[in-house]
Amino acid sequence: MPPRQQVVRIARHPDGAPCAGDFVLDEDGLTRPADGELLLRVVYLSIDPYLRAMLGARYLTGRPPVGAVVPGSGLGTVVESRDPRFAVGDVVVGECGWREYTTVAAAGVRRIDPEQAPLSTALGVLGMPGLTAWSGLRFIARPKPGETVLVSTAAGAVGSLAGQLARRDGARPVGIAGGPDKCRLAVDEFGYAACVDYKAADFEAQLRAACPDGIDVYFDNVGGKVLEAALGILRPHARVVLCGLIEQYNAAQRPPGPNLGPVIGARATLTGHVVYDHFARFPEFLAEVAPALRRGEIRWREDVRRGLAAAPQAFADLMQGANDGKLLVRVDGDPFGGRAAG
Amino acid sequence: MPPRQQVVRIARHPDGAPCAGDFVLDEDGLTRPADGELLLRVVYLSIDPYLRAMLGARYLTGRPPVGAVVPGSGLGTVVESRDPRFAVGDVVVGECGWREYTTVAAAGVRRIDPEQAPLSTALGVLGMPGLTAWSGLRFIARPKPGETVLVSTAAGAVGSLAGQLARRDGARPVGIAGGPDKCRLAVDEFGYAACVDYKAADFEAQLRAACPDGIDVYFDNVGGKVLEAALGILRPHARVVLCGLIEQYNAAQRPPGPNLGPVIGARATLTGHVVYDHFARFPEFLAEVAPALRRGEIRWREDVRRGLAAAPQAFADLMQGANDGKLLVRVDGDPFGGRAAG
Repeated sequence: MPPRQQVVRIARHPDGAPCAGDFVLDEDGLTRPADGELLLRVVYLSIDPYLRAMLGARYLTGRPPVGAVVPGSGLGTVVESRDPRFAVGDVVVGECGWREYTTVAAAGVRRIDPEQAPLSTALGVLGMPGLTAWSGLRFIARPKPGETVLVSTAAGAVGSLAGQLARRDGARPVGIAGGPDKCRLAVDEFGYAACVDYKAADFEAQLRAACPDGIDVYFDNVGGKVLEAALGILRPHARVVLCGLIEQYNAAQRPPGPNLGPVIGARATLTGHVVYDHFARFPEFLAEVAPALRRGEIRWREDVRRGLAAAPQAFADLMQGANDGKLLVRVDGDPFGGRAAG
Repeated sequence: MPPRQQVVRIARHPDGAPCAGDFVLDEDGLTRPADGELLLRVVYLSIDPYLRAMLGARYLTGRPPVGAVVPGSGLGTVVESRDPRFAVGDVVVGECGWREYTTVAAAGVRRIDPEQAPLSTALGVLGMPGLTAWSGLRFIARPKPGETVLVSTAAGAVGSLAGQLARRDGARPVGIAGGPDKCRLAVDEFGYAACVDYKAADFEAQLRAACPDGIDVYFDNVGGKVLEAALGILRPHARVVLCGLIEQYNAAQRPPGPNLGPVIGARATLTGHVVYDHFARFPEFLAEVAPALRRGEIRWREDVRRGLAAAPQAFADLMQGANDGKLLVRVDGDPFGGRAAG
């Protein structure tokens, strides 16, 4: 174990879209684990949009100060255990931060079965993004066979699974994504019946054409004009999962939201969805999705960047939509191999 | 039966706040009822905010054209019946329009028991506004004992009953109303624990002071900045009944709505509420509320204007909040007497 490690710190709180210069590579010591703690070697870091909300002081938790190591969940192997339930070599997911090594409370990590699927999936399709899609559909949207389920960020970590699960439920998934490449991916790889490019000039007309009878479910990860357009085509008693507001994460002020008149007219329901509330359902989620994934019925896509130093630009790319699937940073070699897509 | 009657027609579609000049008093003939129809002498007209949305082409039904008799529900007595289920003298509520006599389909009216309560209550606390409050609370908000239930238009036809029902459920009702008189009325007459004036400069601070632990339910009849303020104090898993958007009924364009970030953070649910969906529950509603009203446990307030010609100004007043309780126009003498408040 080296006495020093690389870390990435917050250089300044981003103003608007984040850039690599908002972060700085630095060194730090290693903290030895106390009783009940584990020392992890970080293998993969998960790069997530909620970090932008956090840096803008708009997340559930507080805003991390300038100089702090960037927060973020990751996957690591145990290199020293002070908890009898974990042994050296165990693979866990937990709050790692952007660093090579981290000391975490054993009670706060989730053990990963490396035989179940490629390790990296534990941060994506079989991790928090997957649980987000699954729980939002299963416990809020509850799509019925034949219903139309609209999903934004259709080619992304959450949306790609939401669409596939909706299709497995017998619903007709329609995606929204940014640009023709992502739209094609959503249809060809993730089984969307159609996918509409929100950057297109005639986005609303295309959306109506793709959903001629309106929508029964909208799984919203973005907010803004896309949410407004979706509310305009709600069918009676439609359900809207409010899961994220990426469109405004870069904004200094909270912008106004959509007019809610159509929600009344449609007798629709909008429900705020926070994945943490469903954390206890991880086993149930994995029991359903992991076998389907192994059988090749569930597809996923990862955009893996190499080395801790790549994390700042990876995050900047994510917030511009310049990623190709679930964005990960591989900090160290994956002891179990791993592959880039499923 | 006279050969001619007075009616009020739409002179022009209002631009902004409606005024009496948007309507014109005129004469019309009487249509004799066909089989299955009733001829009614109109006693009371109900003056309702949804008319403004209708005139702005923003209601569920279409926009009535210039020259048409103003639509609106009312209470009348049967003067000629072509349906065996109704006799001359029966009292019914139905779609009357702003006129002295109207011919309606017997299948579309609701029979009123004149012994149950003063006739006028059939258009207010025991009518659609009452059913709106009751069904929104019972089937969407479902307040639990000890919860804080925030209600806008707290001294109005819907809000005054919503607060009283919430209190009967053991919840703590907090009102929002326009001006100190209505706020006083909400507390003294309708039992609100507190009522905040949305016109006050420090409205948001007053609202937070009145709801120090946040709110579990918000019954929204107005939208706009009041809704935005309410979303800012949602407790976890709060329920919001989206029942009306009075604030924007006078606007030519649909204004933006509230930012929905707080809805996600609170894991709250916003549900569009349309009273028509609950029409079949009228008997259940009356069985609960009418006896309580007769026992004096439920209070109500009416603002009764005299004569059909008073309807245009009554509507203009309503849309400015210049009414004192449920706004009615007494077109003809009430055969059962009636009184102005309960």
